[in-house]
Amino acid sequence: MAADPKPQKVVVVGAGPVGSLAALYAAQRGYDVEIYELRNDLRDPSTTPLNFTKSINLALSERGINAMRNAGDHHLLDHVMAATIPMRGRMIHGKAPNGDLFEQAQDYDIHGRTIYAVDRGGLNKRLLDILERMPNVTFYFNHKLSGADFRSCKAWFEVQSREGSTTSTGRAKEIEVGFDLMIGADGAHSAVRYHMMKFVRMDYRQEYIDTLWCEFQIQPAENPSSKEPMSRFRISPNHLHIWPGKEFMFIAIPSDDGSFTCTLFAPSLVFESLGTTPERVPTFFDHHFPGVTSLIDPAQLVAQFRRNPHLPLISIKCKPYHYSSSAVILGDAAHAMVPFYGQGMNAGLEDVRILFGILDKYERMDGGEAGSATGLSAARRSSALAEYSAMRVADAHAINDLALQNYVEMRASVLSPLYRLRKFLEESMSVYFPRLGWQTRYARVSFGNERYSEVVARTDYQGRMLVRGFMGVVAFPLVTGVALFNMKYRRTVQNEVRDLLRWLSRFIGR
Amino acid sequence: MAADPKPQKVVVVGAGPVGSLAALYAAQRGYDVEIYELRNDLRDPSTTPLNFTKSINLALSERGINAMRNAGDHHLLDHVMAATIPMRGRMIHGKAPNGDLFEQAQDYDIHGRTIYAVDRGGLNKRLLDILERMPNVTFYFNHKLSGADFRSCKAWFEVQSREGSTTSTGRAKEIEVGFDLMIGADGAHSAVRYHMMKFVRMDYRQEYIDTLWCEFQIQPAENPSSKEPMSRFRISPNHLHIWPGKEFMFIAIPSDDGSFTCTLFAPSLVFESLGTTPERVPTFFDHHFPGVTSLIDPAQLVAQFRRNPHLPLISIKCKPYHYSSSAVILGDAAHAMVPFYGQGMNAGLEDVRILFGILDKYERMDGGEAGSATGLSAARRSSALAEYSAMRVADAHAINDLALQNYVEMRASVLSPLYRLRKFLEESMSVYFPRLGWQTRYARVSFGNERYSEVVARTDYQGRMLVRGFMGVVAFPLVTGVALFNMKYRRTVQNEVRDLLRWLSRFIGR
Repeated sequence: MAADPKPQKVVVVGAGPVGSLAALYAAQRGYDVEIYELRNDLRDPSTTPLNFTKSINLALSERGINAMRNAGDHHLLDHVMAATIPMRGRMIHGKAPNGDLFEQAQDYDIHGRTIYAVDRGGLNKRLLDILERMPNVTFYFNHKLSGADFRSCKAWFEVQSREGSTTSTGRAKEIEVGFDLMIGADGAHSAVRYHMMKFVRMDYRQEYIDTLWCEFQIQPAENPSSKEPMSRFRISPNHLHIWPGKEFMFIAIPSDDGSFTCTLFAPSLVFESLGTTPERVPTFFDHHFPGVTSLIDPAQLVAQFRRNPHLPLISIKCKPYHYSSSAVILGDAAHAMVPFYGQGMNAGLEDVRILFGILDKYERMDGGEAGSATGLSAARRSSALAEYSAMRVADAHAINDLALQNYVEMRASVLSPLYRLRKFLEESMSVYFPRLGWQTRYARVSFGNERYSEVVARTDYQGRMLVRGFMGVVAFPLVTGVALFNMKYRRTVQNEVRDLLRWLSRFIGR
Repeated sequence: MAADPKPQKVVVVGAGPVGSLAALYAAQRGYDVEIYELRNDLRDPSTTPLNFTKSINLALSERGINAMRNAGDHHLLDHVMAATIPMRGRMIHGKAPNGDLFEQAQDYDIHGRTIYAVDRGGLNKRLLDILERMPNVTFYFNHKLSGADFRSCKAWFEVQSREGSTTSTGRAKEIEVGFDLMIGADGAHSAVRYHMMKFVRMDYRQEYIDTLWCEFQIQPAENPSSKEPMSRFRISPNHLHIWPGKEFMFIAIPSDDGSFTCTLFAPSLVFESLGTTPERVPTFFDHHFPGVTSLIDPAQLVAQFRRNPHLPLISIKCKPYHYSSSAVILGDAAHAMVPFYGQGMNAGLEDVRILFGILDKYERMDGGEAGSATGLSAARRSSALAEYSAMRVADAHAINDLALQNYVEMRASVLSPLYRLRKFLEESMSVYFPRLGWQTRYARVSFGNERYSEVVARTDYQGRMLVRGFMGVVAFPLVTGVALFNMKYRRTVQNEVRDLLRWLSRFIGR
C-alpha cells in the first residue's frame, strides 16, 4: 500500500484516563489528534469534581502500568508512580466472637508484588499535561457528540455553554468534524457506541446489579509525627481495607495526604431505608462495619452519606468493538464492569496498548514503518480493527465475569476458613511449584499481562488439578479415616464432609 | 383520590399496529391522545412502503385478536378479520429420496383452530381510520422524538421535512410537548426506550442472530377459474408453507389477492456469497428449496433478491418497561423477538390489553369508574405501571425464548420422525385427555390467552409427564424387549436407544 504523505486524523471522544492515553499513543505515532470531551477541562479550577459519578481512588496494577510504560513518553510512568501508594494486600476488619475488633492482613502475592492506590484525577491531569505539549494534539472541551456518520467519516459536536447539560431545549452551536478513525473512550454511557450501533449489528448487554455505592472520607491523623511520615495514616497505608458483610461491604483505599477514600456498597433497599433516617447511619456502621466510627466521626458519617451521591453499578458487555475502518470503542464504553476486581481502568488502559500494538503490526506487515501515522489504508485498518475486536471481546468478557464473581467473594468469603484454605493451597502451590507456573488467578490478573481469557482458562485447569490432588492426597483419606475411627462424632463428620463437598463444588464452579 | 375534571394526556410514540391500538384503548377511556410518528402517514400514497424494514404479512392469532376484541370498537375486529386468510397448519415442502417433490400438511391444532394471515399495512390503516374519527385523538406524522424529561413530563420532537432522515445536520424545527403518560410503541430501535434509560436503571440486552432475511413474492395464478375462487392461489392458501433446511428456511404466507409473501432466512455469509453472484440464486433455490422455481420465475427470483433489502433479526430483552408514572414501552420497543413463533405483533397487541386492564383495575380500586381517563393520580398510575412491568417482563422473556427455540425447530426438526412422534404424542394427549387440560405448547401460545410464562411452566411439566409415561408404558418395555429377544440386531437397537435418549433429553430440555 502506498503511504499517504498527509497524517491521518484520529478523533478521540472522551478525555478520561483511557481516552487521554489513546490520544498519547496516537500522537506518538504522528497522527493528527483531536480530543473531544463533554465536560470542562478537569484542570480548570472551576470544573465540577469528577467524583460526581466516578470513584476518586483506584487500584492501578501491572496492566495499566504496562500500558503507560509503552506509551512512548518516559516521564509519564515516573510521574504517575511517584504519587501512588503500594498496597500489598487486603486488610480484613471484623469483630471476634468475644467482641474484640481484629484486623487480618492477607497479602495479594507471596512474591511481594503489590498493586497501587492512585488518584484518578492526578493520573488524568498528568496525561493531559503531556498531551498539551504535543504539537499534533488539539483539545475541544465542552463538546458533546450529537451525531456521527461512520461511512462518510463525519461527526457532529454541540458546543456546550455549560458542561453536562442534558435536556435538549435551546440547541447549542454545532460543528462538523471529519476523521479517519474515531476512538470512543467516553465511558459506560458512550455516545460513540450509541451512534456506532446504527452502523453495526452489535450484540449489547447492560445490567445493573442491585448494589449502590457512596463515598466517604477518613481524614489524615491529626498530629502526625514528623519523624514517622507514615503516622499521618490512621490505618495501614499499604493495604486495601475491607469490612466485609454478607450483604454490605465497606472499603478504604489510601491517599497520598494520609486520608482514605472509602466506599460503602449496599443493596438499594438499604440505601433507601437509611436515606429516610440518615441519623441511623452510625448505628448501622457499628453493627456491620465495627471500628469505622472511630475513624470517621459519626456526625461526619451522616453528613457524607447525605451529601455524596448514591450511585449505581453497571456491567456492560458488547461485541464487536469496531465499525469498518472508522470507529472503535475502548474502556468502559466497550466493557464497563463492576469494580470488585480493581481492573476497570487497568483493562481500559490495556485496550490502548493492544489496539495500537495490532495497528503497528499491520503497518509492519505492509512494509511500512510501524507507527508512521500515514501507512495504513482504510481496508487494512479495517482488518486491524476486526482483529482487535475479535481478540479483545473474549478478554473483556472474561474480566467482566471475574469482577462479578469477586463481588460475591469479597462480600462473603473473605472471613471463611474455607476461603483461607483455598488461598493457602493456591499460594503454597505458587511457592513450592513456581517452575510449573503455578500462580493464583489474582496474581495472574493483577501482576501479569497474560490475556484475561487465558488466565481464566489456565486457572480453571489449575483449580481442577488442585482439587483432585487435595481430594486424593489429603481430604479423602482424612475424612474417611475420621469417619471410620470416630463414629461417636458421626454427625460432626457428616457436616465436615458436607462443608468440604460444598466448598469443592464452589471451587470447581470457578 | 379525587378525580381531576380535566382528562389526562397520553402521548403515544409510534403509529404502527401496537401504538395505534394503544391510542385506541386510551381514546376509548377519554384520555386526550396525541400520536407522534417518525414516518409519514402510511395511508398517504406518497409514503415509502413499510416493507422497507418490516415484513408485509403476519400471522395474527388469538392474543392479537383478543386485544382488538377488547378495544371497545365493535367494527374493528370485523373489518380486520374480513381481510385475513385462515391458516390451519404448516405445509412442509421437500424432496423424497427418489427425487419426487412432496408436500406434507401438519395441522396446528387437532380441534381445527387456525391462525390468520394478515396484511400488516391493512391492519394498521384500519386502526388509523378508526382513530381519525375520534375527537380526542390528534396525529403528528413526520415527528421525531429528540428528547424527553420523564420527571417534568416534557418531550421534544423534531418536525421532519422528509420522513426518516437520520443524520443530524441542518436541524429541523423542534416542538415541546407535555404529557401525563408517554407510551413508547416505536419499535426495536425505540427512541422512547433510549431516553427512558437515562431515568431508570434498565437491564437491557440486544442480540442479532446470524440470520438475514429477504422477501420474495409468488404471484397469483394467471388464469384463475371464476367458479373456483381458491384457484387464484398457486399453492394451498390455508397453510403457512415451509421449505425447511438445516441452515436455511424459505416460507410463504398467503395474501388475499392470491399472491404469497415469502421470506428467505439464511446465515449472513450465504447472503454475502449469493450477493456477489446473484445469478446463482435459482440454482441455490433448486438445491435447498425444491419446487420454488416453478412458483417464482427464476429471473424474478434473481431480481427480487437484488431489489429487496437483506435485513437482520434482532432479539431484545429488557426490564423494567416503565418509569415512574410517566413512561411505558410496549411491543418491539420492549421485547423485539425473532419471528419464528409468529407472536411478535400478537404479543405487542396483548401488551395493550394487559396494560389498560391493569390501569382499569387501579381505577376501580380507587372507587372510580374504570376507564374514566381522569381518575388515577400519578402515584397510583406509578403503582399500576410497576405492576404491568413486573408481570409482563416474565411473559415477554418467555415468548422471546420460545421464538428463538422455534428457530432451531423450524429449520431442522420438522422433517425428523422424532419430531413427528413428539407432535403425535402431544396431539394424542390433547385429544384423548382434553379434560385434563392437555394442550400442545403451540396451541396454548397461539389459540389461548394464558400468560406466556404459565404456558411454558405448564408445558414443561406436561413434557416431563409425557416422557415419564411414555418411558414407563411404551418405550422402556419395548426397547428392552427388543434388545433381549433380538440380539442379532443389537447395533440397530443401540442406535434406536441412543436416538430415543437423545430425543428424550431434548424433550426434557424444553
